[in-house]
Amino acid sequence: MGTMFISYLHHSTDLLYRAKALSVRAQKETKYKIRITYGGQNQITSILKGWLAGQKAMLVTTPTVNNLYGKAIAKALQNAGIDLSLKELDCTEESKTLSQAERVCAWAQEVGIDRKGVLVSLGGGVCMDIVTVAASLIHRGIKYLRVPTTLIGLVDAGIGIKGAVNFGNAKNYLGCYSPPSKVLIAPLFLRTLSEERLREGFAEILKIALVRDGALFELIENDGLALIDSRFEDLSVSAKLILQYSIFTMIDELKSNIYEDQTYERSVDFGHTFSPTIEVETQYKLSHGQAVSIDIALSTVLAHHFGLIQIEYRDRILSLMKRLGLPIYTRKLTATLCKKSLLRASSYRGGHPNLVLPTDKGKSYFVKDAALIDDEILDESIRVLAEVDE
Amino acid sequence: MGTMFISYLHHSTDLLYRAKALSVRAQKETKYKIRITYGGQNQITSILKGWLAGQKAMLVTTPTVNNLYGKAIAKALQNAGIDLSLKELDCTEESKTLSQAERVCAWAQEVGIDRKGVLVSLGGGVCMDIVTVAASLIHRGIKYLRVPTTLIGLVDAGIGIKGAVNFGNAKNYLGCYSPPSKVLIAPLFLRTLSEERLREGFAEILKIALVRDGALFELIENDGLALIDSRFEDLSVSAKLILQYSIFTMIDELKSNIYEDQTYERSVDFGHTFSPTIEVETQYKLSHGQAVSIDIALSTVLAHHFGLIQIEYRDRILSLMKRLGLPIYTRKLTATLCKKSLLRASSYRGGHPNLVLPTDKGKSYFVKDAALIDDEILDESIRVLAEVDE
Repeated sequence: MGTMFISYLHHSTDLLYRAKALSVRAQKETKYKIRITYGGQNQITSILKGWLAGQKAMLVTTPTVNNLYGKAIAKALQNAGIDLSLKELDCTEESKTLSQAERVCAWAQEVGIDRKGVLVSLGGGVCMDIVTVAASLIHRGIKYLRVPTTLIGLVDAGIGIKGAVNFGNAKNYLGCYSPPSKVLIAPLFLRTLSEERLREGFAEILKIALVRDGALFELIENDGLALIDSRFEDLSVSAKLILQYSIFTMIDELKSNIYEDQTYERSVDFGHTFSPTIEVETQYKLSHGQAVSIDIALSTVLAHHFGLIQIEYRDRILSLMKRLGLPIYTRKLTATLCKKSLLRASSYRGGHPNLVLPTDKGKSYFVKDAALIDDEILDESIRVLAEVDE
Repeated sequence: MGTMFISYLHHSTDLLYRAKALSVRAQKETKYKIRITYGGQNQITSILKGWLAGQKAMLVTTPTVNNLYGKAIAKALQNAGIDLSLKELDCTEESKTLSQAERVCAWAQEVGIDRKGVLVSLGGGVCMDIVTVAASLIHRGIKYLRVPTTLIGLVDAGIGIKGAVNFGNAKNYLGCYSPPSKVLIAPLFLRTLSEERLREGFAEILKIALVRDGALFELIENDGLALIDSRFEDLSVSAKLILQYSIFTMIDELKSNIYEDQTYERSVDFGHTFSPTIEVETQYKLSHGQAVSIDIALSTVLAHHFGLIQIEYRDRILSLMKRLGLPIYTRKLTATLCKKSLLRASSYRGGHPNLVLPTDKGKSYFVKDAALIDDEILDESIRVLAEVDE
């Protein structure tokens, strides 16, 4: 070792010099598959079986989903030889807390989930949020599958890599970007979804339609109501198109900015500027989808105000929303709430509110200057919504 | 929009076909700088001031470090116009819990840390672990700086991107890979470090020396004791070399496998196979560094057993350890504990224990088959350590 030591000392001056600044660089690849199946419960079980084979798994679901599907799917998987535990978790916006994520972690530890173990979330947005946070923490991140059961889950919340829980008075204050290993999209679950929750999901589909593609808007105008009424049971070409087109567009949008570190101008933030504040200020009495819906309606009126859309298109949108049973107004909607929302959005979006407004072309316009949206404009827009709502 | 709709329907068959499998792919870049400064407190403050300018910051430190440096540095930064809050956190291995990370999150919320805010961890490994986990959760990950104050922190724990807390009975069961935005390495802090904690740090330096480069081993043999005695105060070329060479080698090792998803053969796992179990089974009465030290000693004896090193080199290592005051044995060290450790390591390292053993060339050898390390070999090796220890 003597020679090594000497040759080493020869480089020591260089070594000391280089020490001034050292940098670490690495790339991490995010890669996962989303599978859409129009099959029934057997098909769903069979796909999950393939994904879970040879791994220790824990399926987390909500009480409602557990009774409808969870127990049956878990049993079928266990019978097929999968080493799977089933856990039921209360999943409401009020219980979307760190303690709930901690509970999932404790269960995982209890059943012996190791680094190669996998969690499965079978439920709506809240269930996926909690499981995503738990999976991201366990062993610094283990695999997890998303099997959304709500329309919001299918077309929006289930597809991405985000998870979060509420903390203090702040919605989604704690969370992570943690890609699932796989996502299973099965419209079968929509058959038992309440009309109210189906409508909430339509708000997210409308979001994509208004700021990303007008063709989708026409499809919804033509078939939206029938789809809600039939709970997507008649999987006509139109139903599949609406679902898949929403999903494709969502994935497309996600891909370019999945860690939200590329740009603060995100089309999918449409409907998500005023809605978090609406949710918080109504103590989550309005659901996420309902709050998003009201945000979409307000943004539509603002878009007309700024000359981005014609009054005819504005009214066409609002009347479609009413026809689909999507809320467009709440008494809690005030200019004060809106300005608070814009301030909050600015803190999230690099200093600008980047309020997303739709245009006639089915594209997004980003309002960067909060001062443009003053009390007068807000009061007037809210008044329009209240009137149309009557 | 009519034409869009029609041209859209033309593509619908293709759309339905493509739906079978959808995949999301994206790259995330990890990039951060490590700065080494040999300056005093003014220099440290001045560097931090540059890093924190214009941002809302919260500095988290331990009670001991707060009295020695935290208050003074915080005050100097505040006087220099930095919007900084100072928080003191109890940081022991027992209090390395999710609740403590949650506490940091609550403080952050209280002082109004937004997405552009930054946390600073000023302390040892536990402080950095807790702050890393908190920062990774707040707003799905905000910026944070690492300013390690222990020798382990300077050469090992402070450099990487990992954070974790203990959970249930499992060490580091919950955690994250979350890169700091910057790391400041300042040997100044070593001047007030206890001899015991300096020794713990030397265990990590020895780790790098034995499995990555023999030259470093010779440096430690020559100057290690003097460095401990002087608490690195005399920053001779040798002290700087030992520090920097450890840091460079650590960074080098990190770079190739920073998310630990490239290989399960990691040289830096040397000393970290038996030590987590030793820590847990002694209820953290033995510190991380002490447990690592005993692990290194045992692995050294095992390396000789497998013919990877000569008996002279084995004894040279053990006698250096004794001279530096590094523990090589504890009564808790049994064959049962070791086999439990190998099993646990296998669950972390893709099914193989990948026990790292040093070779004569200062390189790593990975034992992939736990069966090779049977009771007899373990008992005999532990006996050797007990004897040398006497």
